[in-house]
Amino acid sequence: MSKKITTIGEIMMRLTTSGHERFVQSDSYQVTFGGAEANVAISLAQFGMSTSHVTAFPDHDLGKKATAYLRQMRVDTDFVYYYEGRMGLYFLENGSMQRSSRIIYDRFDSAFSNFDGKDIPWETVFEGVDWFHWTGITPAISQNAADMLLRALQIADKKGIKISGDINYRRNLWQYGKSPLDIMPELIRYCDVIVGDNTDFENCMDIQANDWIDACYQAQKDFPKIKYITKTKRKSISASHNQLKGILWNGSEVLNSKTYDITHIVDRVGGGDAYIAGLIYGFLHLEEQEALEFATASSVLKHSIPGDANLVKVEEVMDLVHDKNVGKLLR
Amino acid sequence: MSKKITTIGEIMMRLTTSGHERFVQSDSYQVTFGGAEANVAISLAQFGMSTSHVTAFPDHDLGKKATAYLRQMRVDTDFVYYYEGRMGLYFLENGSMQRSSRIIYDRFDSAFSNFDGKDIPWETVFEGVDWFHWTGITPAISQNAADMLLRALQIADKKGIKISGDINYRRNLWQYGKSPLDIMPELIRYCDVIVGDNTDFENCMDIQANDWIDACYQAQKDFPKIKYITKTKRKSISASHNQLKGILWNGSEVLNSKTYDITHIVDRVGGGDAYIAGLIYGFLHLEEQEALEFATASSVLKHSIPGDANLVKVEEVMDLVHDKNVGKLLR
Amino acid sequence: MSKKITTIGEIMMRLTTSGHERFVQSDSYQVTFGGAEANVAISLAQFGMSTSHVTAFPDHDLGKKATAYLRQMRVDTDFVYYYEGRMGLYFLENGSMQRSSRIIYDRFDSAFSNFDGKDIPWETVFEGVDWFHWTGITPAISQNAADMLLRALQIADKKGIKISGDINYRRNLWQYGKSPLDIMPELIRYCDVIVGDNTDFENCMDIQANDWIDACYQAQKDFPKIKYITKTKRKSISASHNQLKGILWNGSEVLNSKTYDITHIVDRVGGGDAYIAGLIYGFLHLEEQEALEFATASSVLKHSIPGDANLVKVEEVMDLVHDKNVGKLLR
Amino acid sequence: MSKKITTIGEIMMRLTTSGHERFVQSDSYQVTFGGAEANVAISLAQFGMSTSHVTAFPDHDLGKKATAYLRQMRVDTDFVYYYEGRMGLYFLENGSMQRSSRIIYDRFDSAFSNFDGKDIPWETVFEGVDWFHWTGITPAISQNAADMLLRALQIADKKGIKISGDINYRRNLWQYGKSPLDIMPELIRYCDVIVGDNTDFENCMDIQANDWIDACYQAQKDFPKIKYITKTKRKSISASHNQLKGILWNGSEVLNSKTYDITHIVDRVGGGDAYIAGLIYGFLHLEEQEALEFATASSVLKHSIPGDANLVKVEEVMDLVHDKNVGKLLR
Amino acid sequence: MSKKITTIGEIMMRLTTSGHERFVQSDSYQVTFGGAEANVAISLAQFGMSTSHVTAFPDHDLGKKATAYLRQMRVDTDFVYYYEGRMGLYFLENGSMQRSSRIIYDRFDSAFSNFDGKDIPWETVFEGVDWFHWTGITPAISQNAADMLLRALQIADKKGIKISGDINYRRNLWQYGKSPLDIMPELIRYCDVIVGDNTDFENCMDIQANDWIDACYQAQKDFPKIKYITKTKRKSISASHNQLKGILWNGSEVLNSKTYDITHIVDRVGGGDAYIAGLIYGFLHLEEQEALEFATASSVLKHSIPGDANLVKVEEVMDLVHDKNVGKLLR
Amino acid sequence: MSKKITTIGEIMMRLTTSGHERFVQSDSYQVTFGGAEANVAISLAQFGMSTSHVTAFPDHDLGKKATAYLRQMRVDTDFVYYYEGRMGLYFLENGSMQRSSRIIYDRFDSAFSNFDGKDIPWETVFEGVDWFHWTGITPAISQNAADMLLRALQIADKKGIKISGDINYRRNLWQYGKSPLDIMPELIRYCDVIVGDNTDFENCMDIQANDWIDACYQAQKDFPKIKYITKTKRKSISASHNQLKGILWNGSEVLNSKTYDITHIVDRVGGGDAYIAGLIYGFLHLEEQEALEFATASSVLKHSIPGDANLVKVEEVMDLVHDKNVGKLLR
Repeated sequence: MSKKITTIGEIMMRLTTSGHERFVQSDSYQVTFGGAEANVAISLAQFGMSTSHVTAFPDHDLGKKATAYLRQMRVDTDFVYYYEGRMGLYFLENGSMQRSSRIIYDRFDSAFSNFDGKDIPWETVFEGVDWFHWTGITPAISQNAADMLLRALQIADKKGIKISGDINYRRNLWQYGKSPLDIMPELIRYCDVIVGDNTDFENCMDIQANDWIDACYQAQKDFPKIKYITKTKRKSISASHNQLKGILWNGSEVLNSKTYDITHIVDRVGGGDAYIAGLIYGFLHLEEQEALEFATASSVLKHSIPGDANLVKVEEVMDLVHDKNVGKLLR
Repeated sequence: MSKKITTIGEIMMRLTTSGHERFVQSDSYQVTFGGAEANVAISLAQFGMSTSHVTAFPDHDLGKKATAYLRQMRVDTDFVYYYEGRMGLYFLENGSMQRSSRIIYDRFDSAFSNFDGKDIPWETVFEGVDWFHWTGITPAISQNAADMLLRALQIADKKGIKISGDINYRRNLWQYGKSPLDIMPELIRYCDVIVGDNTDFENCMDIQANDWIDACYQAQKDFPKIKYITKTKRKSISASHNQLKGILWNGSEVLNSKTYDITHIVDRVGGGDAYIAGLIYGFLHLEEQEALEFATASSVLKHSIPGDANLVKVEEVMDLVHDKNVGKLLR
Repeated sequence: MSKKITTIGEIMMRLTTSGHERFVQSDSYQVTFGGAEANVAISLAQFGMSTSHVTAFPDHDLGKKATAYLRQMRVDTDFVYYYEGRMGLYFLENGSMQRSSRIIYDRFDSAFSNFDGKDIPWETVFEGVDWFHWTGITPAISQNAADMLLRALQIADKKGIKISGDINYRRNLWQYGKSPLDIMPELIRYCDVIVGDNTDFENCMDIQANDWIDACYQAQKDFPKIKYITKTKRKSISASHNQLKGILWNGSEVLNSKTYDITHIVDRVGGGDAYIAGLIYGFLHLEEQEALEFATASSVLKHSIPGDANLVKVEEVMDLVHDKNVGKLLR
Repeated sequence: MSKKITTIGEIMMRLTTSGHERFVQSDSYQVTFGGAEANVAISLAQFGMSTSHVTAFPDHDLGKKATAYLRQMRVDTDFVYYYEGRMGLYFLENGSMQRSSRIIYDRFDSAFSNFDGKDIPWETVFEGVDWFHWTGITPAISQNAADMLLRALQIADKKGIKISGDINYRRNLWQYGKSPLDIMPELIRYCDVIVGDNTDFENCMDIQANDWIDACYQAQKDFPKIKYITKTKRKSISASHNQLKGILWNGSEVLNSKTYDITHIVDRVGGGDAYIAGLIYGFLHLEEQEALEFATASSVLKHSIPGDANLVKVEEVMDLVHDKNVGKLLR
Repeated sequence: MSKKITTIGEIMMRLTTSGHERFVQSDSYQVTFGGAEANVAISLAQFGMSTSHVTAFPDHDLGKKATAYLRQMRVDTDFVYYYEGRMGLYFLENGSMQRSSRIIYDRFDSAFSNFDGKDIPWETVFEGVDWFHWTGITPAISQNAADMLLRALQIADKKGIKISGDINYRRNLWQYGKSPLDIMPELIRYCDVIVGDNTDFENCMDIQANDWIDACYQAQKDFPKIKYITKTKRKSISASHNQLKGILWNGSEVLNSKTYDITHIVDRVGGGDAYIAGLIYGFLHLEEQEALEFATASSVLKHSIPGDANLVKVEEVMDLVHDKNVGKLLR
Repeated sequence: MSKKITTIGEIMMRLTTSGHERFVQSDSYQVTFGGAEANVAISLAQFGMSTSHVTAFPDHDLGKKATAYLRQMRVDTDFVYYYEGRMGLYFLENGSMQRSSRIIYDRFDSAFSNFDGKDIPWETVFEGVDWFHWTGITPAISQNAADMLLRALQIADKKGIKISGDINYRRNLWQYGKSPLDIMPELIRYCDVIVGDNTDFENCMDIQANDWIDACYQAQKDFPKIKYITKTKRKSISASHNQLKGILWNGSEVLNSKTYDITHIVDRVGGGDAYIAGLIYGFLHLEEQEALEFATASSVLKHSIPGDANLVKVEEVMDLVHDKNVGKLLR
């Protein structure tokens, strides 16, 4: 039976300009949906995992469409709620060459930010679940969201579910009167795995360190449940050409994945989420180094797919890990 | 020299599903802009008038695109301001046959609603202006907007500019703690022409009347500056087939335009604004009855054009008024 | 708790030319899916019912996409199987005016036609189910399909589930060596409700009758479980303009719905399936005459929506039944 | 063996705005080709006739594309020449409802207008040909074109080929120093069949008459080879709704076809050419009255098809003539 | 007078997802046609050659559209037949970066596979023909197709026409009970030129060899009519970036073309067919080494063009061979 | 207050094939506008400059659309005239890889070429203007255009406005009986800055020189007002990959910008105009070397944007100059 993963977080409607048109040029938008945590769930669903996402949408047809999107992508929507508020949005202009991609967020006063989640039956939500994933975006949105997440973490932890947190510090959020250091440490405490770099550590865990490895050891000391810390290292040669590798600290040493040349990029949004999904799949099915390679290869493939979500299968990722069937014409 | 008309009001980005797709089906949106008052300005600009629109947009690329839209449509944007807040949005699903069209508004916390307009140089704005047009949507948005509009009306009135107000009562707005009756009468008092039906009169002017004509006489008594009251009478046989005529009360009698059969409708949004633009053009250039016919024919043609704005020329409207070149293939 | 409906049948990928282009003109196809029974399930899902569809697809990405389509439309896919064979296809050219719409079927050797369904756990499939719907297309496809359907009917009948069958005689199918009269009577025997006209009765039930009512009484005599027989009466003035009403025989009299003028048709495929879905909803929630009106109004609204499926809500249908909000602009 | 028809004339690239967008709105054009005479050839090719078109294009990729268009439509291009000059263009804005469609021509200095056709092997062109069709547009373009046409007519006449001419007087052409009356009579003299109304007769044949029938008798007197004169009678209720019938004078009486209601028009350009193609087919295969009905039904169906050309088969036209399969869903 | 080339083979409708969308994402398909042999004919037609293709399509509008496609591309369709069976299809998902392109074939029971070709007048087909090209796909489809091809080869050989065969071994075909070694040797025997690599040689000619050159000499021994053997050597760095060169064995030595870096690939399907077309053109007009360079440059340019067919002119290929006008903006 | 720049020149409608389709494939064109001088004005408008363009269009809806395009792009259109003649057009096929892009011009007999400009109030046009830019395309179009330009230069010079001229020699123009050497020297004489390479110098200034620097010194001698001469050096590795740097001679030495690798090119048309706009901005606001870097970085970014115009802001160019935010995802 396939492993079961639950995620929680806001999903926004994504409105993307056509081709490489700039905002000022484009008279039509491609419509899809995205959210850091749901992107992880969707990617895991394509890997054949059983997934469920907890979120809230406005109670009108755009909210219904967002739910339909999750269902289409094989994510269970039994714990999708409808609540007062807007549909969170983000507008995306795809860059190319030296020109950067640009996002305009329009997510304040969303149904998710207003949602108190008081009636979520967390015991039911976590029944049979193997892994719970959250990100630092959720507690940055509202006190309601932070409280809801804390409850979720307490119950997941009690049930012995593995927990990963992508710290994902966003300076533009955290508008509701709390600072990350008020909130994040209590949440990170429940994590087995965290994703972050030094900026994240500093802002959300109060860790000052000269380099990432020092920070990892420091994190382990302060948050003893943490077993793995990971991040990707990306070099942006241009919007069309990046280099990427994954780095994993396992408590005693740092593992590095292969470095990939990612050129002719189609869509880099969600590349980090694809990495995390790959890593979760890897931790559930593979050895450490192979898990890391799987995560990085997942992320690489995401860059070839339009939209936020990484629509690839395990076999495709494995092929890339083993340098098989790369860039062919498969009949 | 062409007449000069100034309008004020919020402009929203309009996101329309493709063809006759429902919200749940559509994976792309056509992007344009619309606002009741700007629609009037744009239509008048196509009639060759000199027009200017006063509004505020967020200070990012979507606000810039909205300004570019106005410029493209020949509306002067010297008094477009950039301010904190969102881009107001509305999502449109085009109906057909018996299925209604549906709009989801997403306009709260917009730059326009936040904008205090304190620095608008109204004397400059109204220099050389012949006509000022506003609608009841503006004071329904925020106290800021209501205050700004009042100032505009005071100065326009002082300068002897003709003033028209489309009462346009919207139950879903008026969320900032004031009721229409707190605000609207003081604004309507400056109008030479108003557009409204009995519901508008009741909610915004405290006029109870059995029929529209009685209400007109009552309005005249309460608001002695009013010289004309007008409305359209629309029968919706289906989303694709309406019937329409214009009705004008001139202080002593009620004039009726021809009734048009509007079938094979392309886009009915903005039909009322097209009527008002036609009427303003008519009052500035034509006799009463002809002005009314011009207004109704303008509105009819709008239904054949995608988007909020009525992109037709004076000659085209005149041809329809005189039943010339109707539905031909003009080489 | 919402009622639960199960359907069974083949789903084809539908490839539609752009706009009103003919096959010879069109260089792109819109891709969606359709099947008489799944169309019913999807429509019921939009009405808020709990629905499940039993079918088989080829085990490749097009089959996966078909499953995703069902999920997106809120139909449960726990009993979707992957099997050897093709993805059934149909090509659609949308007519207009006097020019008919045209379908080219390409469904032979499909996974569904090959599927033996031996391992379907029918007891589980029918757990908690209130209604089971099938059509005469399934037994016309292959002996395998006919056998599978018979087993389904036996168990559904045993569990006391209401059963409806749309006879839907198709001369072009029935290619596997059996005639409809070899197979259909045994299946129709389990039905509480059937959909058909005299041609269907003659070919599938061996009933010769002068008019439809006589045939109904005859059917009742030969198939005593039948309680209701229904059909729609459609007049095709053109591909863009039809008239439609529903007719229901309830064992003792014939009820007629209102007749609707359906003009400016967007897509008439699936109009009959929308009628049946409406009728099933009606039988489960409404009185006889109201059920019939609900069914006909459902079918009418379908003609305004691109694709096979009727994506309307109960409130929308009810509004049309009560002539409310018809063809308006709903804000 | 199928009958063989030859046509001659200019073909323009047609650039059409999207949907019902106006010129000022549209940021993309649909690209196809059209010309009164080639439209006739293409329609006849769809009827299974053997057709050939004589014309000239510029010697670059747009000219090559025009040739490819003819080939694709089953018209023989052995007598397509490449010559100095532009690709003739026309821009089309599709009207709807009361709003007319509009054409902007951009055809001066085209390759066809410059082409002298000196080397066309007319004897070869007309080998085995049953019917030759031309229009008054060709001699209106340039002296070169008029001369070339005269030579063609002389040889076609000598070979006993049936000849039809669509007089098609266009005030905007005839810019090269000759008037229609200088040129047209000599060309019309070769015709067995002409298409025209009183305006055409007056401008191109110097016939003044009170009504069309009088004009026909007068034409017969002045141009004794003429056996048939025909025209359509179109009433434009709107751009989306016309009424149409065909009228044929056979030398002794006037025949009328059924009158058709053409509503929900997709594209009316080429409706007249479709009529002529239908009539030519009719004259070659049917009795007089049936030929006329075939012509009118051909023209009706054209209005349902995007582009200039009438892409329908004989069976489809015949079905409409006999009121069979009209506006159905044909499986 | 231009050289005349005849090809034979199945043509499939190609349905391609939009942009770089995956099958599961794409809701529209681009429609074109392709087949290994027809691709060669089309490319040669763009080189100005006279070409004809022998094939069979189903007798409905999709078959007609396929014929229209060939005509549009300047290929003669006098020997296109309509026969019972399906339109062969293939679905294409365009890869990018490390993600491979994927094809789902749906070609069984096609009209071509059923077609017996008994009435093809081969003597007429080959009148005036200089070159005949076939591939190993045809005999792999059905016994009918293999028999038809054998007859064609016998007559072409008798008439002294040059014959090329692309061995093109496809494991997924050969489903009708014969193995390649039962059929292929008899066909290859007629060839002057073959295209293949060691896998092809082993499966279809029973040649085991350590390297390609050895295999060539062995082939020459077993099939003495063969004068040239060729293949391309492709390195897939990614789906967007390949390297390519052509290799030609002329009976005594191996020639190599320049190696090209092909990056920013638009569409690599048909790259091999473009190579063969280039080589045939080269053999008919150029010296050996230049022919090989022409072939490779042809193939390179194909990768820049959407669809199966290589729509380039001789001058464009020659320019690339001579490193002239490469990647410029030509006005 | 922002600087004010005026440009003069023809603007053509640009019709671009879809994606990378060739002319023969594409059935739709993207519609935009472009002209060497207007491209400069538009780019400067995006930099926040006040810009105005002097030109003439035909007096129909395509001319109106061209004006709307300029307005949308923030260019003042007070000196746009409507005149007899055609809308100039150019057709663009976007290359990729080794395949070049191709332009077919269709600009003869345009309104601009016919326009005599006699009534242009040059004194008003140049009121408050800081910079005037022209190109050698204008005097190459017609005597009228050359005369109009000369008048403009005389007045601009008299008013002490800085003048730049892009020599831009086009062999295909100059069809009205004058040679460049008859006309250009008199115009170049007014320039402070010229853009050109040795071919331009030879054809338009009668300067023969071995290298570009020698030519610059020679130009300075012959045209003593010239202070700066500039050009870009572009290496076309393929249509998708170029290398570019800017070169500036300042009267005493040659400055070089950084060399950029421009790969994954979206649209290279207008790259030179973007360079000039950047240089003008630079001369008005920056030091020499920084101005040159700004110009080159502007040009680089243009290659990432569809259409002729460079829609980037000063900050974006500055970021690239300083290697900041290059190819990122900016939130």
